[in-house]
Amino acid sequence: MPYVSTAGEFTRDQRYIATRITADGRDGYPVEPGRYRLIVSRACPWANRAIIVRRLLGLEDVLSMGIAGPTHDERSWTFDLDPGAKDPVLGIERLQEAFFKRFPDYDKGITVPAMVDIPTGQVVTNDFAQITLDLSLEWRQYHREGAPELYPEALREQIDKVNKFVFADVNNGVYRAGFAGSQEAYEKAYHRLFDRLDALSDLLTGQRYLAGDTITEADVRLFTTLARFDPVYHSHFKCNRSKLSEMPVLWAYARDLFQTPGFGDTIDFVHIKKHYYEVQRDINPTGIVPVGPDLANWLTEHGREKLGGRPFGDGTPPPPPVPAEVVPAEHGARA
Amino acid sequence: MPYVSTAGEFTRDQRYIATRITADGRDGYPVEPGRYRLIVSRACPWANRAIIVRRLLGLEDVLSMGIAGPTHDERSWTFDLDPGAKDPVLGIERLQEAFFKRFPDYDKGITVPAMVDIPTGQVVTNDFAQITLDLSLEWRQYHREGAPELYPEALREQIDKVNKFVFADVNNGVYRAGFAGSQEAYEKAYHRLFDRLDALSDLLTGQRYLAGDTITEADVRLFTTLARFDPVYHSHFKCNRSKLSEMPVLWAYARDLFQTPGFGDTIDFVHIKKHYYEVQRDINPTGIVPVGPDLANWLTEHGREKLGGRPFGDGTPPPPPVPAEVVPAEHGARA
Repeated sequence: MPYVSTAGEFTRDQRYIATRITADGRDGYPVEPGRYRLIVSRACPWANRAIIVRRLLGLEDVLSMGIAGPTHDERSWTFDLDPGAKDPVLGIERLQEAFFKRFPDYDKGITVPAMVDIPTGQVVTNDFAQITLDLSLEWRQYHREGAPELYPEALREQIDKVNKFVFADVNNGVYRAGFAGSQEAYEKAYHRLFDRLDALSDLLTGQRYLAGDTITEADVRLFTTLARFDPVYHSHFKCNRSKLSEMPVLWAYARDLFQTPGFGDTIDFVHIKKHYYEVQRDINPTGIVPVGPDLANWLTEHGREKLGGRPFGDGTPPPPPVPAEVVPAEHGARA
Repeated sequence: MPYVSTAGEFTRDQRYIATRITADGRDGYPVEPGRYRLIVSRACPWANRAIIVRRLLGLEDVLSMGIAGPTHDERSWTFDLDPGAKDPVLGIERLQEAFFKRFPDYDKGITVPAMVDIPTGQVVTNDFAQITLDLSLEWRQYHREGAPELYPEALREQIDKVNKFVFADVNNGVYRAGFAGSQEAYEKAYHRLFDRLDALSDLLTGQRYLAGDTITEADVRLFTTLARFDPVYHSHFKCNRSKLSEMPVLWAYARDLFQTPGFGDTIDFVHIKKHYYEVQRDINPTGIVPVGPDLANWLTEHGREKLGGRPFGDGTPPPPPVPAEVVPAEHGARA
């Protein structure tokens, strides 16, 4: 995601391509197996949401995934991890090529996640918040058997409410702290963030997940920020009242999800750290990537089962990732 | 202290003014009550040593202390905390004036701690390692009743040995990590630092202090780095395998000292954080100072009394700081 940094407060550029891929194809892009490619970076928290939701819903066979490298330059995310530094399906080196193919004069951020129409090579949408909801609602016909309901009608109001303040204060809040242009703007973001984390801790003391006793879209969205908290946001973005690992309820909640199939197996701590510390030279001029923290603690017992809950509701956990999409062991939480 | 940053490894400029203030005055500067002024900044770990030793030995009445502000520019430490921004005894605005008064062409670092000869206004020495030893050995005639032996003959070999590797791997090690000019140099410093902290943890598991059962110069030297670890070095210098508060033995040891008269009462966390984050723009370009971490934990029970030991040997703890030298409550560890 791009950002606009002003003298004071950090403002996220929230203009995304609003075209949607839907079951009825009303925007010209009907849901179709094999037609689209989800482009992500494992580093990016917004793309991480889509990786998780695709895994939980079992869409791997109908929606392929291209993985951009963790670092990028001013011009965009690149496919430097792929043989020949080209995405093997789209045949492009930079994600911006798919944006320019659709909009030759595209002047907004080249961001992940992005859904690309394989036949034309054109980007369809990069509207990250809509992408995961559409995977749940519009791609339903292709969900695996036992796929969970991540955005069920009955919980939608609660999920929307949580998502709204989690976005403002946490997901985007850490960026507001890290990219603040003044001490005052930073401190405002810092206090908003930790006040919200305290409130979330209270909420999660008595219930296993954000919307109740099953995993929903709301948990996916909070999780991708929590996974980056200690390795990056705590130091790099100065979100340092305490580490996640020092906030007992949230830390247990985060480990519970991490150890749930579809969550922790999407996390690449090496990519995450490289991205922030190497790309964001305006706050880390040397580009040096910290060796710590020790991340084996993500695999420790969390004790949240005692709260009950049915993680996947009437559904089942996803099977292990397909071999091509397995995060190398040394990039995850090492035991 | 100044530093020399090269493309790779950080190298500390270790050329100090070697003149000594001694009981016999062999360098032309005999120990004399009221003649010298110790110039410090509460931010600086090297100056902090001298502040502690002066307190422990009760030299306040014979050796006055001037406190420079936490931030400084290229030209040197300033007395911006004092009325009229001038040191009230020396009448200077910048510490460099005292250096130039003695050496008009002085071209090395203008550093604290510095001992200044009040009658001439000339700096005598800024050799931080020698200054504290001389306070112990050369100023003995003026020590308070009950002053501890910080560098006793019998323990000198052990103290020297500890000091040597604590300096290389810890005191200076954190700077080597923070100012490394390459990923490789950083990682080398990082591992040296944490390997040494692990070894120190082992040593301190069975004994209360570094040289045995009483506080010595070695403890003073380790303490001033540990006090800055979580508020600064962990994030700013990327010393982030874990926080000090996550290393149980060292953390208990550090709190034990912090809660001992003469140690924690010299610590100004506000000055410490402002100094590193505002001055070192090459690693923190925004100059924004983190709000965290929560530091009230320095006042929690440490349980080290169970190891026995006699903190001040045959001596006694120092009385509370003189009113003019009390660190404001809101700059310390708040309960």
